[in-house]
Amino acid sequence: MRRFIKKRSKKAGLPPGTLVHIGEQKAEEVSITVIDYDEARFQEEEIETVEECFPFKDKPTVTWINVDGIHQVEVLELLGDCFGLHPLVLEDILNTDQRPKMEDFSEYIFVVLKTLSYNDQSDELEPEQISLILGPSLVMSFQERAGDVFDPIRERIRNGKGRIRRMAADYLAYALLDSVVDDYFLVLEQVGEKVEFLEEELVTNPTPETLQTIHNLKREMLFLRKSVWPLREVIGALERGESSLIKESTGIYLRDVYDHTIQVIDTIETFRDMISGMLDIYLSSVSNRMNEVMKVLTIIATIFIPLTFIAGIYGMNFQYMPELVWRWGYFVVWLVMLVIGVLMLVYFRRRKWL
Amino acid sequence: MRRFIKKRSKKAGLPPGTLVHIGEQKAEEVSITVIDYDEARFQEEEIETVEECFPFKDKPTVTWINVDGIHQVEVLELLGDCFGLHPLVLEDILNTDQRPKMEDFSEYIFVVLKTLSYNDQSDELEPEQISLILGPSLVMSFQERAGDVFDPIRERIRNGKGRIRRMAADYLAYALLDSVVDDYFLVLEQVGEKVEFLEEELVTNPTPETLQTIHNLKREMLFLRKSVWPLREVIGALERGESSLIKESTGIYLRDVYDHTIQVIDTIETFRDMISGMLDIYLSSVSNRMNEVMKVLTIIATIFIPLTFIAGIYGMNFQYMPELVWRWGYFVVWLVMLVIGVLMLVYFRRRKWL
Amino acid sequence: MRRFIKKRSKKAGLPPGTLVHIGEQKAEEVSITVIDYDEARFQEEEIETVEECFPFKDKPTVTWINVDGIHQVEVLELLGDCFGLHPLVLEDILNTDQRPKMEDFSEYIFVVLKTLSYNDQSDELEPEQISLILGPSLVMSFQERAGDVFDPIRERIRNGKGRIRRMAADYLAYALLDSVVDDYFLVLEQVGEKVEFLEEELVTNPTPETLQTIHNLKREMLFLRKSVWPLREVIGALERGESSLIKESTGIYLRDVYDHTIQVIDTIETFRDMISGMLDIYLSSVSNRMNEVMKVLTIIATIFIPLTFIAGIYGMNFQYMPELVWRWGYFVVWLVMLVIGVLMLVYFRRRKWL
Amino acid sequence: MRRFIKKRSKKAGLPPGTLVHIGEQKAEEVSITVIDYDEARFQEEEIETVEECFPFKDKPTVTWINVDGIHQVEVLELLGDCFGLHPLVLEDILNTDQRPKMEDFSEYIFVVLKTLSYNDQSDELEPEQISLILGPSLVMSFQERAGDVFDPIRERIRNGKGRIRRMAADYLAYALLDSVVDDYFLVLEQVGEKVEFLEEELVTNPTPETLQTIHNLKREMLFLRKSVWPLREVIGALERGESSLIKESTGIYLRDVYDHTIQVIDTIETFRDMISGMLDIYLSSVSNRMNEVMKVLTIIATIFIPLTFIAGIYGMNFQYMPELVWRWGYFVVWLVMLVIGVLMLVYFRRRKWL
Amino acid sequence: MRRFIKKRSKKAGLPPGTLVHIGEQKAEEVSITVIDYDEARFQEEEIETVEECFPFKDKPTVTWINVDGIHQVEVLELLGDCFGLHPLVLEDILNTDQRPKMEDFSEYIFVVLKTLSYNDQSDELEPEQISLILGPSLVMSFQERAGDVFDPIRERIRNGKGRIRRMAADYLAYALLDSVVDDYFLVLEQVGEKVEFLEEELVTNPTPETLQTIHNLKREMLFLRKSVWPLREVIGALERGESSLIKESTGIYLRDVYDHTIQVIDTIETFRDMISGMLDIYLSSVSNRMNEVMKVLTIIATIFIPLTFIAGIYGMNFQYMPELVWRWGYFVVWLVMLVIGVLMLVYFRRRKWL
Repeated sequence: MRRFIKKRSKKAGLPPGTLVHIGEQKAEEVSITVIDYDEARFQEEEIETVEECFPFKDKPTVTWINVDGIHQVEVLELLGDCFGLHPLVLEDILNTDQRPKMEDFSEYIFVVLKTLSYNDQSDELEPEQISLILGPSLVMSFQERAGDVFDPIRERIRNGKGRIRRMAADYLAYALLDSVVDDYFLVLEQVGEKVEFLEEELVTNPTPETLQTIHNLKREMLFLRKSVWPLREVIGALERGESSLIKESTGIYLRDVYDHTIQVIDTIETFRDMISGMLDIYLSSVSNRMNEVMKVLTIIATIFIPLTFIAGIYGMNFQYMPELVWRWGYFVVWLVMLVIGVLMLVYFRRRKWL
Repeated sequence: MRRFIKKRSKKAGLPPGTLVHIGEQKAEEVSITVIDYDEARFQEEEIETVEECFPFKDKPTVTWINVDGIHQVEVLELLGDCFGLHPLVLEDILNTDQRPKMEDFSEYIFVVLKTLSYNDQSDELEPEQISLILGPSLVMSFQERAGDVFDPIRERIRNGKGRIRRMAADYLAYALLDSVVDDYFLVLEQVGEKVEFLEEELVTNPTPETLQTIHNLKREMLFLRKSVWPLREVIGALERGESSLIKESTGIYLRDVYDHTIQVIDTIETFRDMISGMLDIYLSSVSNRMNEVMKVLTIIATIFIPLTFIAGIYGMNFQYMPELVWRWGYFVVWLVMLVIGVLMLVYFRRRKWL
Repeated sequence: MRRFIKKRSKKAGLPPGTLVHIGEQKAEEVSITVIDYDEARFQEEEIETVEECFPFKDKPTVTWINVDGIHQVEVLELLGDCFGLHPLVLEDILNTDQRPKMEDFSEYIFVVLKTLSYNDQSDELEPEQISLILGPSLVMSFQERAGDVFDPIRERIRNGKGRIRRMAADYLAYALLDSVVDDYFLVLEQVGEKVEFLEEELVTNPTPETLQTIHNLKREMLFLRKSVWPLREVIGALERGESSLIKESTGIYLRDVYDHTIQVIDTIETFRDMISGMLDIYLSSVSNRMNEVMKVLTIIATIFIPLTFIAGIYGMNFQYMPELVWRWGYFVVWLVMLVIGVLMLVYFRRRKWL
Repeated sequence: MRRFIKKRSKKAGLPPGTLVHIGEQKAEEVSITVIDYDEARFQEEEIETVEECFPFKDKPTVTWINVDGIHQVEVLELLGDCFGLHPLVLEDILNTDQRPKMEDFSEYIFVVLKTLSYNDQSDELEPEQISLILGPSLVMSFQERAGDVFDPIRERIRNGKGRIRRMAADYLAYALLDSVVDDYFLVLEQVGEKVEFLEEELVTNPTPETLQTIHNLKREMLFLRKSVWPLREVIGALERGESSLIKESTGIYLRDVYDHTIQVIDTIETFRDMISGMLDIYLSSVSNRMNEVMKVLTIIATIFIPLTFIAGIYGMNFQYMPELVWRWGYFVVWLVMLVIGVLMLVYFRRRKWL
Repeated sequence: MRRFIKKRSKKAGLPPGTLVHIGEQKAEEVSITVIDYDEARFQEEEIETVEECFPFKDKPTVTWINVDGIHQVEVLELLGDCFGLHPLVLEDILNTDQRPKMEDFSEYIFVVLKTLSYNDQSDELEPEQISLILGPSLVMSFQERAGDVFDPIRERIRNGKGRIRRMAADYLAYALLDSVVDDYFLVLEQVGEKVEFLEEELVTNPTPETLQTIHNLKREMLFLRKSVWPLREVIGALERGESSLIKESTGIYLRDVYDHTIQVIDTIETFRDMISGMLDIYLSSVSNRMNEVMKVLTIIATIFIPLTFIAGIYGMNFQYMPELVWRWGYFVVWLVMLVIGVLMLVYFRRRKWL
């Protein structure tokens, strides 16, 4: 629940552009890494003070400044001042309750993304907000905690694998976007396994807990959807290439990411349909079971109630009851009861209740 | 209920532009405050008669006229005359049953907004209509009652905090809009708490009252939605900046408010989905319970009905019933009953009813 | 039902433009009123023969010809000939089964509208078709029966109240449109009262009749919707002002009517949502009741079935039943029964069935 | 069922443009009628061989070639050759499984339509495909069987009634379209009667067959919808008048047909809503009935189970049961039972179960 | 399940354009066939090494390179190098988890398609991905396994049947698309048969398995839909003919395929509606059955419970029970019971329970 609404109250009434971190602090400490490269050179540094990354500002090489942990407002303020970011951008980076969006400030593009991952303890989906700034030869990325989403890209830059070292900052930004979208596929794989498991459970042994699990999955889909739909718009807007910061040659790669996003959405929608189908199956299997129970009750009751009535008749103490003194009365009653019982069973079978 | 339809009958047949106040009178008396400022100067006055605010009309400084309480038609008429407002605008301000909307009259922009807040007594959402007029160096705001939505902005202007004193009237209008939208976040936080509480109740102790609460929440969402969807259009239209009254530099701030509105809508939709999911959970938990009850009934009945029948048999008064005179007859019957009971229990367990 | 489909069979196969009145005859006789005015002069006449209104054709003053009752085909034919109306227009006026629509024939604009009102006897919504023709200085209106929808406007023209006498024919057409839309608010107020009443009934005393009423309301909403949605398009098209017959100054008034239409639609949609929510509440209150009934049955049956069984045991007539001769046997059995009963009650309470 | 999917397998793998008749043969024999007219002249011929209609090709008069029965591929091939129709057009005419569509081949316009009629025997909706070709002075129509849809038009041409003889080929095409759309009104009238009948049945005597009928109607609506929605696009495209084959003066008539189509769609949607409302009513009336049944069971059982238990108690054979020897014991028991019964009835009445 | 999400994990972190085959290997070995033709000449070769197809690159004749089996990455790499395909295209061909799409690389058009077929063993729908490359005089097609979808086209080229030999590469591409779409009709015929079978089963003998089958069909429709909706966009984009690779004369054929796709979608939607209607029928038939069962139980219980109570009364052992010693007591009791039973039956019949 919490995750849908973060306490914004602490910001209420403050002028726009006031920097307040909204959300939980997820990283112990803020750590800043700078990677600077072109086809020939490569430099990677973990820096201590924000000021150390100022010299990279005017270098012609591609500079990637990655900030893990965003709860220290001062760090952001310094970065914002140095690289000329709009106060509203800084505010949005700090407010981890953002919807994925893209804003083009002509000198730079600001992108907010969400990644989702299953928390190992609670088995719940946890969102993390990732903000990207793409300048002419600069990419800045802000994560809530040190994550491994961008590790393969770091590796690729270090090794000079693929075409990343030959390309400009926009390609790096694309690569970051791509790894975020690829991350969704991993989450969907996990969801897929859950769905598969649930489907089996539904057939073999449905319990009220199954229902709870179905509803949890349903909500997770809601959650995924809420993150991915705006992502599509974001990447679509980047791809349409209205910004001069994105070269045409990168457009084709963005189209590829765009296709992946569509596929993620498609899969989510399919899962949603499957899950709501599972709900239907669950409910009708429950009602089938109920019918079974009712049928057994009816058959037992319908057979024995009349028979018990007959037994009751001959348990009466009237002084004059001719049948009681008949020699074979008892056995005749048994016979009558048997016939009634058999007739009823035949009737039930004819009505297909047995 | 009432709140969806206000009595318009008293206006039926009157020519358009006739000023009639539609709605309940919420403020005791009409109070008018004028705030006049530029970067250097600041003046704040509570005025007695409408005429006192006429001199502010032609000042180059930014003038903010705030009217709390709109039930005195004469006040509005005078203001309208002085500041050249269209009769339909005055009519719309008085008719508190408006849908949020924006109208551009080239010399001024007219905006109708809704705020919602929980009434402390009835715990129901109560709407209030806020109308804004944005002129070249003038902002007029009309509230149904003296509220605290705009207090932080007044404070900011007084203290010269933020950039508000350096900016023109359009920035002030933006700030008012922003505080209205921020107000929705506060309402959503409250809704969020209700939803959270309800979810717990649903798991621990669902009662028919839970159902009622779910339906109330559902309706409140309907209500919120009805206010916020048109708000989005309003701010979207302002942001697209077709009016010369809104400077380009304010556009970026309006885009920010627009993003917030989208986020409010997003959250409302998510809540709606969650609430309808809760309804499903409630209904299936009720039907699960029902099944439990039915199963117990069936098991008890199915076991004891045949046994009672047997007891009935040997309660019959036939003169010749061989079993009755057997030495161990009574104990054999007990044994038979036990065997039948156990067999049935085994059967139920095999069918997973126990 | 009938009202959704009117017998068109009598027209099948006739060439287009053939004038046949489709619908029930609602007025006794056709009555034609002519109102002719400008700012200075005013003339109102009830005329006997159609020909009397021909002279008004070329007057520069605004002429409003109102026809109540449209079942006399000849009247329409004469009017059509004189004022140069297209045969299809006349056909549409006569066919009271039209969908609201607007058609621009450059010399005149043809508008079909629907009003709805509750029939006093049957308490059902009854539609009436109103057709308007707007020429350069002429408005013609056709109603199925003499109604009071337009009375306030007549009054306003007579008294010269408001700006109507100073304005041209397009303003008159606007005023007629406005009164038609205002009429919907009156219907919605009545619907609102019904909904309110129903909501109370739902809480205090839901009966199968409640369900019927909910469904009736639902259908009425369907009905309202069917009339109002196209109305919105009609007024939207007029407002966009593509016709030279509508002056720009009237545009702002049409925008106002348009806003009202949106509000009517909004309210209808809200009612629809509320009504379908009421249906849900009704159904789950019925199923809650059912559960109550089931629980009582189960508790009574589950407690007494085993006890009756025990009583049955000691009602058996075996010669050798040791308990029967015990001194305190009877009281021990009572005790055992009591203990079983109490244990069961405790069990039920633990399961929260009591 | 069959009607949704016709065997296309016989065409699989054949090159496009191969002429194969798909569908059932509905007419005994192919019959071709030629009507040729202008304002002055009129000629009507039933022709034997296709070649006979070749001379009409270059006549300046309007020629209407109507083909009833399309299963003879050779006939179509000859016509296609002579009048220069594209092989794909001929293929579409033969494939009676087409969706209504319009294709503009600049020299001619090709339109596929569907009519629906209730089969007298099976009371099921049966589709028939009608294809139209509109050339400069030529209309060709292809029907699956000799139908009476076009008879009134033939009559009108013969008699020179209406404006049809004065108009060109596009007006004839319009007239044919119009009669197809009018035909839908007749079907909807029949559906309307069914719906009315069903509604009454639902109130007076709902049976499981009622449910089946509701579902059949629902499917028929599906069916109608599938035919009419594309029809709307077809007529809309014709009306927008992008083809030089359609004169502007005909545009207004097409707009009229378009309005009718919208009205047909509207009515279908209303019926759909009504039918699904009827389903809801049916289901809740069934569940109401069920509740009634359950209540009676519960009341009977709840009253008599405890009483039977008491009777069982005094049917026990303990030697020492003090009550049994009391003088008024029997009557006291009766009294106790009566009191219990009455108390229960009071309880039930208080809970509103009676 | 599996089919919705294929393991992408093995690709995670690799740079874009890295060629990895995703999906199951469906063909034993990769086989490449080259067909080269113009109106006069025809040549068909199964080639051993990829290099053999390089000479066809610059021939003016139409060359169709068909690759069955795509799991050998090297084959694709060679082809890609020779024919100048973008690495992302090769990646997409290998990733069999693609959504149908069309990409225009100006020198060539890349199309991804899906075919579906029922697996003979599992009776489940199995997707296969087909990729097409259309160059100026070249068509390349990639299939996951050797299939028979394209066989009729091969046959047509060999025999020179139809116009295929006279046309250019774009017509060949159209022919391939057409056969893929036609393939859907075959699948839909099979689905249609299943639906028909199910409908009969639903009426004659609905079982819980029927429900399972309905849900399976529902999911298959989901599946079909997911493949066909994007197909429509693909063909729509091709038809709009923005690429110079597609001649205008081919446009009309593509429009035909487009119409077929619409028809496939239409049929799928109709099936979906029908299937969800069947679900409703199933559920209400189950609940009708349940009602039947309940009614029988109620009637039996309601009749016999009071009678058994009476029998219980006269089974009591009170010393003083006057009725017991009456001469006709026993018969009077029988009479009373009969009267009660008959009254109840009458009551039930009046309530229409019998």
